[in-house]
Amino acid sequence: MASALAQLRKLPYEDIGFAKIDHHRSLRTGVPEVIYCEGKSVAQIVGITKRMAENHNNILGTRVEREIFDAIAQQFEDCEYYGEAKIAVFKPRPVSRNGHIAVVCAGTSDIPVAEEACVTAEVLGNNVARIFDVGVAGIHRLFDSSDEILRANVAVVVAGMEGALASVVGGLVSCPVIGVPTSVGYGASFGGISALLSMLNSCASGVSVVNIDNGFGAGYQANLINKIALDKDRR
Amino acid sequence: MASALAQLRKLPYEDIGFAKIDHHRSLRTGVPEVIYCEGKSVAQIVGITKRMAENHNNILGTRVEREIFDAIAQQFEDCEYYGEAKIAVFKPRPVSRNGHIAVVCAGTSDIPVAEEACVTAEVLGNNVARIFDVGVAGIHRLFDSSDEILRANVAVVVAGMEGALASVVGGLVSCPVIGVPTSVGYGASFGGISALLSMLNSCASGVSVVNIDNGFGAGYQANLINKIALDKDRR
Amino acid sequence: MASALAQLRKLPYEDIGFAKIDHHRSLRTGVPEVIYCEGKSVAQIVGITKRMAENHNNILGTRVEREIFDAIAQQFEDCEYYGEAKIAVFKPRPVSRNGHIAVVCAGTSDIPVAEEACVTAEVLGNNVARIFDVGVAGIHRLFDSSDEILRANVAVVVAGMEGALASVVGGLVSCPVIGVPTSVGYGASFGGISALLSMLNSCASGVSVVNIDNGFGAGYQANLINKIALDKDRR
Amino acid sequence: MASALAQLRKLPYEDIGFAKIDHHRSLRTGVPEVIYCEGKSVAQIVGITKRMAENHNNILGTRVEREIFDAIAQQFEDCEYYGEAKIAVFKPRPVSRNGHIAVVCAGTSDIPVAEEACVTAEVLGNNVARIFDVGVAGIHRLFDSSDEILRANVAVVVAGMEGALASVVGGLVSCPVIGVPTSVGYGASFGGISALLSMLNSCASGVSVVNIDNGFGAGYQANLINKIALDKDRR
Amino acid sequence: MASALAQLRKLPYEDIGFAKIDHHRSLRTGVPEVIYCEGKSVAQIVGITKRMAENHNNILGTRVEREIFDAIAQQFEDCEYYGEAKIAVFKPRPVSRNGHIAVVCAGTSDIPVAEEACVTAEVLGNNVARIFDVGVAGIHRLFDSSDEILRANVAVVVAGMEGALASVVGGLVSCPVIGVPTSVGYGASFGGISALLSMLNSCASGVSVVNIDNGFGAGYQANLINKIALDKDRR
Amino acid sequence: MASALAQLRKLPYEDIGFAKIDHHRSLRTGVPEVIYCEGKSVAQIVGITKRMAENHNNILGTRVEREIFDAIAQQFEDCEYYGEAKIAVFKPRPVSRNGHIAVVCAGTSDIPVAEEACVTAEVLGNNVARIFDVGVAGIHRLFDSSDEILRANVAVVVAGMEGALASVVGGLVSCPVIGVPTSVGYGASFGGISALLSMLNSCASGVSVVNIDNGFGAGYQANLINKIALDKDRR
Amino acid sequence: MASALAQLRKLPYEDIGFAKIDHHRSLRTGVPEVIYCEGKSVAQIVGITKRMAENHNNILGTRVEREIFDAIAQQFEDCEYYGEAKIAVFKPRPVSRNGHIAVVCAGTSDIPVAEEACVTAEVLGNNVARIFDVGVAGIHRLFDSSDEILRANVAVVVAGMEGALASVVGGLVSCPVIGVPTSVGYGASFGGISALLSMLNSCASGVSVVNIDNGFGAGYQANLINKIALDKDRR
Amino acid sequence: MASALAQLRKLPYEDIGFAKIDHHRSLRTGVPEVIYCEGKSVAQIVGITKRMAENHNNILGTRVEREIFDAIAQQFEDCEYYGEAKIAVFKPRPVSRNGHIAVVCAGTSDIPVAEEACVTAEVLGNNVARIFDVGVAGIHRLFDSSDEILRANVAVVVAGMEGALASVVGGLVSCPVIGVPTSVGYGASFGGISALLSMLNSCASGVSVVNIDNGFGAGYQANLINKIALDKDRR
Repeated sequence: MASALAQLRKLPYEDIGFAKIDHHRSLRTGVPEVIYCEGKSVAQIVGITKRMAENHNNILGTRVEREIFDAIAQQFEDCEYYGEAKIAVFKPRPVSRNGHIAVVCAGTSDIPVAEEACVTAEVLGNNVARIFDVGVAGIHRLFDSSDEILRANVAVVVAGMEGALASVVGGLVSCPVIGVPTSVGYGASFGGISALLSMLNSCASGVSVVNIDNGFGAGYQANLINKIALDKDRR
Repeated sequence: MASALAQLRKLPYEDIGFAKIDHHRSLRTGVPEVIYCEGKSVAQIVGITKRMAENHNNILGTRVEREIFDAIAQQFEDCEYYGEAKIAVFKPRPVSRNGHIAVVCAGTSDIPVAEEACVTAEVLGNNVARIFDVGVAGIHRLFDSSDEILRANVAVVVAGMEGALASVVGGLVSCPVIGVPTSVGYGASFGGISALLSMLNSCASGVSVVNIDNGFGAGYQANLINKIALDKDRR
Repeated sequence: MASALAQLRKLPYEDIGFAKIDHHRSLRTGVPEVIYCEGKSVAQIVGITKRMAENHNNILGTRVEREIFDAIAQQFEDCEYYGEAKIAVFKPRPVSRNGHIAVVCAGTSDIPVAEEACVTAEVLGNNVARIFDVGVAGIHRLFDSSDEILRANVAVVVAGMEGALASVVGGLVSCPVIGVPTSVGYGASFGGISALLSMLNSCASGVSVVNIDNGFGAGYQANLINKIALDKDRR
Repeated sequence: MASALAQLRKLPYEDIGFAKIDHHRSLRTGVPEVIYCEGKSVAQIVGITKRMAENHNNILGTRVEREIFDAIAQQFEDCEYYGEAKIAVFKPRPVSRNGHIAVVCAGTSDIPVAEEACVTAEVLGNNVARIFDVGVAGIHRLFDSSDEILRANVAVVVAGMEGALASVVGGLVSCPVIGVPTSVGYGASFGGISALLSMLNSCASGVSVVNIDNGFGAGYQANLINKIALDKDRR
Repeated sequence: MASALAQLRKLPYEDIGFAKIDHHRSLRTGVPEVIYCEGKSVAQIVGITKRMAENHNNILGTRVEREIFDAIAQQFEDCEYYGEAKIAVFKPRPVSRNGHIAVVCAGTSDIPVAEEACVTAEVLGNNVARIFDVGVAGIHRLFDSSDEILRANVAVVVAGMEGALASVVGGLVSCPVIGVPTSVGYGASFGGISALLSMLNSCASGVSVVNIDNGFGAGYQANLINKIALDKDRR
Repeated sequence: MASALAQLRKLPYEDIGFAKIDHHRSLRTGVPEVIYCEGKSVAQIVGITKRMAENHNNILGTRVEREIFDAIAQQFEDCEYYGEAKIAVFKPRPVSRNGHIAVVCAGTSDIPVAEEACVTAEVLGNNVARIFDVGVAGIHRLFDSSDEILRANVAVVVAGMEGALASVVGGLVSCPVIGVPTSVGYGASFGGISALLSMLNSCASGVSVVNIDNGFGAGYQANLINKIALDKDRR
Repeated sequence: MASALAQLRKLPYEDIGFAKIDHHRSLRTGVPEVIYCEGKSVAQIVGITKRMAENHNNILGTRVEREIFDAIAQQFEDCEYYGEAKIAVFKPRPVSRNGHIAVVCAGTSDIPVAEEACVTAEVLGNNVARIFDVGVAGIHRLFDSSDEILRANVAVVVAGMEGALASVVGGLVSCPVIGVPTSVGYGASFGGISALLSMLNSCASGVSVVNIDNGFGAGYQANLINKIALDKDRR
Repeated sequence: MASALAQLRKLPYEDIGFAKIDHHRSLRTGVPEVIYCEGKSVAQIVGITKRMAENHNNILGTRVEREIFDAIAQQFEDCEYYGEAKIAVFKPRPVSRNGHIAVVCAGTSDIPVAEEACVTAEVLGNNVARIFDVGVAGIHRLFDSSDEILRANVAVVVAGMEGALASVVGGLVSCPVIGVPTSVGYGASFGGISALLSMLNSCASGVSVVNIDNGFGAGYQANLINKIALDKDRR
C-alpha cells in the first residue's frame, strides 16, 4: 500500500494549516472551486480564497451573510455578491451560458434557496429559467409556465411546507428532477423534514433529492446533468 | 360537586364488566353506535353488540378482519360485511342517502382506507362519489373528475407516500377538505408519517387531517359536515 | 396537453416578479385573499397587498409582528391590526357576521393562537363565541360554557401541553371539531408534538386537526363549514 | 474503597450463573421478589424461581405468556396464573389486603395493562377498585365512579390513544396519580408515544408517569404509596 | 345532561376575561393555588394573583424570571422570590413543615430544577433534605448521604445527561421515587430526552417520572405522597 | 377553468375501476410503463398489465415476490422474472442498450437493491456496469474499479449501514451521483435512516438521493440522465 | 491519480462475483477475517468462507442462526458454533489467550449480546472475565466483582433498558470502557435507543459506545486495546 | 449494608454546598481533575477550582467561553486558555508527553472539536499528531498523512455532515478508532445526528463513538488507551 500512497501524495493540494486546498478537484470534476463559508472565519475564507485565486477564476463562496461579505471584500476586492442567494463570487470572469436548466419554486419565501441554485448554475455556465411562486394551491400558474420547464434538460424544484410541487412537476416532465426541500414553514414542518420526506416519497419516478435548503447542491448537480447534454463526446 | 356528579350519573349507559356502553352518545351526537374492533376479542365484540342492538340499528364495527367477522356472524347473524373496508354492520337497516361527499384517493393501494371512509359515510346516510387512482403523477386524471369533486359539500382525500393530493385538491375546491394519510409506501414514508406531515403542512388553506389510515374518522366527520348542509334548522 | 394548458393560462393571475397573485382563488374558493407574512419582507408584503387591493377588500395578513405592521402601515395606510392574533387586515370593510362558530381554548398562554382563529373567522363573516381558559384540569369551567359550544355549527379547540381538551369537547358535541395543537409547553411537549399527537389520536370521533399553532387554518376551515350551514343552495 | 467493597460483598445474594439473585432486595424494599420473564427461557425462569422460593412466598412473574406458564407449571407446580394480566404467582400464599388503590382505565383494549397493575397491587397486599372503560369520549361514565376514585390513597390511570384520561382524573382528585400510557392505538399513536407524551405534559399537577404498558411498575409504586398511608410509623 | 351541567356551573370559579380562576381547586385538592408564569404577561400574572389573593395565601408562581418578578413586585408587594428555583410566593405566610422528602440531584447544573422541587415542597409544608451533586460517576458520595434518603417518605431524583441516578436510588430505597429528567447536557442528550428515556426504562421498580425540567411537578406530587404519611385519617 | 379541464380530459387514460391507466405517461416521459406491485393483489396486477400490454412492451413490475410472480405468470405468460431484483418484465422485447451507467454497491447484502437499479436501467435500454462489494472498509477495491466508474455518464451508489460510499464516489467522479440508501444494518441504522442522512449530508457536491431501498427510482433517473447524453437534439 | 490507483490495484483481494474478499485486511489490521452473516445466503457464506479458508484460520461468522449454521456445516465441516453468541468459527485452531478484558452485563436478557463480545474476544486471543447480571438495581452485586473489573485492560459494559451500568462502571475504573446498548426492554426503550443515549451521555469520562446489540464490535475493539497492552513495541 | 456504607463514607471528597468535590477520583482513575463548565456560574467554577487546586495541578476546565475565562482569570490568575478548544487549564504545570495519538478531522469547521480532543490529550501527557481537513471528498489528502495515523496507538476521528471519515480511517488502520461526530452541517444533519448514526453504523470494525461535539471525551479515552501502551505493568 505504501507505494500507492506515495503516488496519491503527488496529487496537487496545498496545506495552509487550517485547510488543505484540493487543486486537483477542479481538474478532476471539471467545475470551479467552491467554499462553504458557514462556520468559517473571515480570515479563513480570505486565506483559502487567495490561494485558490492563484489558479482559478469564478470561485464560489456559499452561505455568505452580507456583513461577512463586506469584511471579506475589504481584503479581497475582486469579487461580487448575490444578496438573495448569499453567494460571493471571487475573481468573477465572464462565462458563456449554455443548455437549459429550469428552477421552479413554490412560494415567495422559498426564493432565497431557489436563487442559490440559480446563481450557482449560472456561474458554472448554464442558462437558467426562473419559474417562481407556482405552488400547488393555484396549480394553473404552474401550467402556464410548463413550456419553459418542458424545454429544460433538468429541472430543480424548490419547495417548503408540504413540498408537493416536486411530485407534480415530476409527473409533467420527461427530464430528471432534483428536489430541494426548504425549511420554510412552522410547526409540523419540523424545519424542512415534511418537505424532505414528501420529495423522497414522490409518486413520480424521476425525482431525486438533496439536503434541506441545499440550493447550491441542486444547482451543482443540475450543472453536471446539463453539461452531459452539451458534451458531444459523451455517449 | 357531588350533586352535579349525581346528575351526570343518571345519563344512560350500561356496565357489562369489560365495557360501559354509552347509550347516551347516539342521542348526544346524532349518529349510530360504533365499535372499534381491533384488539377486542370476539366475545367482547359480540357482548357489546348484543346490548347495543337492543336500542340501535346499523351499528358499525370497524377494523374487522374477515376471520373475526365470520366468528362473530355465527353468534350474531343479523349483520353484513364490507371486505375491502373491513367494516361490519350489525342490524343493517335501509337508510336514505343525502347530500354529496367526495372521496378522492391517490393510488390503488390506498383503496382499503378510502373504502373505510366511503362505507362509513354511506351507512351514516350520505351520498358518496368515489374518485380513485388520481394521484398527482398523472394529474389530468384528477381534473377529469373535478366536476364531481366541485359538487360535494365536503371532500375526503386519501393518500400515502408523499400525500401531495390533499394540497392539490385543496387548491381546486371551495368546500372543506379532510386529509387521510395512509401507511402506503416504504422506507422514508415511515408508516405514513410522510403523508401525515405533508397534509398538516398543506399550502392550501381549507385542509384538516385525521390519523394515519383513519378512513373511519374522515367518513364520520364528513358525515357531520354534510349533515349541516342538509339541516334546515342550522343557521 | 398543449391546448389544455393554453386554457389554464387564461385564468386570472398576475406576475409581479417575486410572486404570482392568484386573483382566481377568491373567485374559486369564495373567500378573501390571504397573505402568509412570516418570511416575507415588508417590501414584498406591500407589493403583493397593493396589487390585491385593486380587486379585493379585507385582505388578511397573518403572522405579522407589530414592528412589521408599523412599517407596512406607513406605506399602506388603509389597514387595521389585531395585536394578540398578529393579524393585519388591509382595506378593512364592514362584513355581516352569520352562523355560529365556537373557539374553545385550554389555557391563557394558548390565547394568541385562539385569537388568530377568532379574528380570521370574524373577518370572513362569522359569529364567533370565545370560550377561553377551560382546560381539563378544572373541567367544570368547560361544562359551564357548554350551551354556547352546543349551539355552534363547528367548534375549534385550541390547546397545548397534552391537548386533552379536543377529546373532551369532541365527546360532548355533535358538530365537527377542528383541533389546533399549540406549541405551549416545555420539555416533552416538543414544541407542540405532544398536543398534535393527542388530537390525531382522539378517542372522540368527529375531530380533525390542523398544523401546530395554525389558528388561521382552523378559522378558515371553520368558516367553510359554517358557510355550508348558511348556504341554502347546498344540499 | 477496598474495605467498603468488602462490606458490600457480604450482602446476601446468590450466583446461579446466568443470574445473581438479590435476596437482600426484599429485605431492603419490603416487597416480594419479582421476575421480569420476557426474554428469559423457561429454564432460566424455573431456575431463578426455585432458588427464590427457598426464602420467599408470592414471587411475581410478569409478562408470562400462557404457553410459557404451562411449561413452567410442569416443573414448578406451586403456582397460579392471571391470564389477562399475564402474571404468574409462584408459591402463592394468602395476603391481607389493606388501604385503597383505584385503577382507572380508558378503553376495553387497555384492560390487560390495567389488570397487570391490579394483580400486582393485590398480590402485594392492597385493596384495588377497578374502574374500567371510562374514556373521556363519554365523560359522565367517569363521573359516576368518582366516589370510588376519591376514596383512594393513590390512583393508577391506564390509557392509550391520546391518553387524556390521566389529566381529567388528575384534575378531579387530591391523591397522587400514576399514569400508564398503553400501546393501544394505530398510526400516529406510534406504539404509545402519543399517550406517553400526553401524560408527561399533563396540565394537572399531581401526575407522574411510568413506561408504556408498564402496568406492573404502576401497581408496584401504588403499593409503596398506599403502604405509607398504612404505616403508622411513617411521619 | 342539562341539569348535571347546571350543578357543575355552581362550582366556584371566577372569569376575568383572559383566565377563569378555579377557586374550587384548592378546596378539591387541598393545596394552595399555583400559577405557571411562563408565556403569561406581567399584567396577566398580577391580574390572576390579585383575585386569588382575596381567598388564598402562599400562592406559588413558577418559572418566573427575575426581571418579571421585579415588575410584578412593583404592583403586588406582598411577595418573596427564590432566585435559583425561579419561584415567586405571593402573600407568603408561615407554614409548618412536616414529614420527610429527600431531593437528590446529580450535578451542579441540575440544581435549579432541584431547587424548584425543594421550594415547592417547602412552601406546601414539607421538610426537605437536599442531597446535591451525587452523580453516579463518584457513587460513594451518594452512599454517604444514604441515611437521609432512607429516612424519607418519598424521594425526588433530579438528573440530566444519562439520568442514571434515578435507577441507582430506586435500587437503594423502599419509598416511592419520582424522577425528574433535566435538559442539562448537549448533543445526544437532545434537551433531556436521554434522561427522560433512562428514567422511564429504569430497571428499579418504584420509579415514576415527570416532564423534563418539571421540578415543580415532582415537588407537588412528593407533597401529596408525604401528606398521606401524615394524614391519620388515610387508611 | 372549465374549458381547460375539458381539454385535459381528452388525454388518453383508461379507467378499470380500481385503477386509471395513464397511457399518456409513456408518451409524455418517453419511458415504458411501470407498475409498483407491493400492496396490489394478483388480480389487480394482471388486470392493469393486460390493458397496458395492448399498447406497450417491456412493462416493468417492481417489488414482485417470487410466489406473486408465479401466480401472475399463470395468467399472463409473456413475461420474465429477475429474482434478485424482484422485477417482472411483461411482454419483454429486445431493446438496444446505449451509453454508460455505473452501479456501485457497498456490500453483498445491498445487492438486491443494486440489482433493482441495474435491471431497471437495462430494460430501459442502457449499458450498466456492476461494481459490487466495494465498501469503504477496504477502499482499494473501489479504486481498482475506478476506470469503469469514471467512464459512466451517471453513477448510482447503493449502500446501507453508514452509507459512506456515496461521498467517496462523489469525490472521485465528475458525473452526477445518485445515492440509494438501503435498509441493510441493525440497531442505530434504523431501517436505513443512517444511510439516508449520510447521503443527504454528503460533503461531495454532485450527490442527490432517492428513498431507502428505491433501486428502481435510481435506475429510472439514471436512465433519464444517460439518455440526455445520447440525445443529439438536447442542447 | 492513475498511477496511484495502479498501485492500489495490486493490493491482494479476490473477486468472487457477489463479494470481493479483502485478503489484505488481516495483514493490515492484524486480526482474523470476519463475515457478517445476517442477510447473506448460505451459498454466499460458504463461498466466501471457502476462499478465506485457503489463507486464514479462525474465521469468525457473526449473527448466525442455528439453522443457518447447520446448513453451512454440511458444506464446510471444519467449524464450531457458539449458540448463545450466535457465532460460528470456521477452521477453528487453538489460540493462546493473553491480557485481561472484563465483560460486564446488566441483566440475564442481555447475555446473548455479552456472549457475542466474549466469544469474539476469546477467538481473537484474549482472556475474558464474565461478570453477568449486575444491574444497578442491586448495585452491591457489581461491587462484589469489582476486583475482576479493576484488573482488566479494558471493560465492555452490556446493558439494555436505561443502560445506567456503563456510567457506574465508568466511574469505578481507570481503564477504557466500551458501552454496548442492547435492544432489551419495551415501550420507551425504543429498541435500544434509551440505552444508546444513556451511554453516549455518560457522566463518566472514559466511556465510548458501539451500535445497539453490537457485541462483536465491542469485543473487536476491546481486543485492539488489550493487544496494545501486550505489544512491547508499542510506545 | 450500613457498615459498607460507613466505609464508603471515608472516601475523600469535599462538600462545598453546590458541589461535592471527589478528590478520590484522580487517585482512582489516574488522571487530573476536570470541570465541565457549561451551565456553571463563574462563582461556582472558581469555588470548585480553588478547592481542587489545593491538591491538584493541571485542572482542566472544558466548554469555557472566552468572556467566562476572562472573568475567572481575574479571581484565579494561575491559568491558561486555549481559545479554539475552549479549554482552560488551572495551575498549569509542565507534563512530559509520551506515546502517539492521531487526531484526524474532516473539515475546517470541525477544528474546534478536534482541538478540544488535542488539548485534552496533550494536557494529560500524550503526543498528538493533528491531521486536519482531510474529508473524504478529496481522499488523497488523507492518504498523504497515512503514515502519521498508522504510527498512532489510537486515532480520534472528528467529522460532521455525513461523518464518513471514521469508516474510511477505520478501514485503513489497525489501532482503535474513536469517532467524534460534530454538529457541523445544516438541514438533515440534525445537529450532528447524521454523523453520529454514520459512526455508530460504521462498516469498519474497530470504531467506537462518543457524544456529538464531545472532543474532550475522545481525548480523555484516547489518553487511557495510549497510557496502556506505555504502562509496562499492564499485561
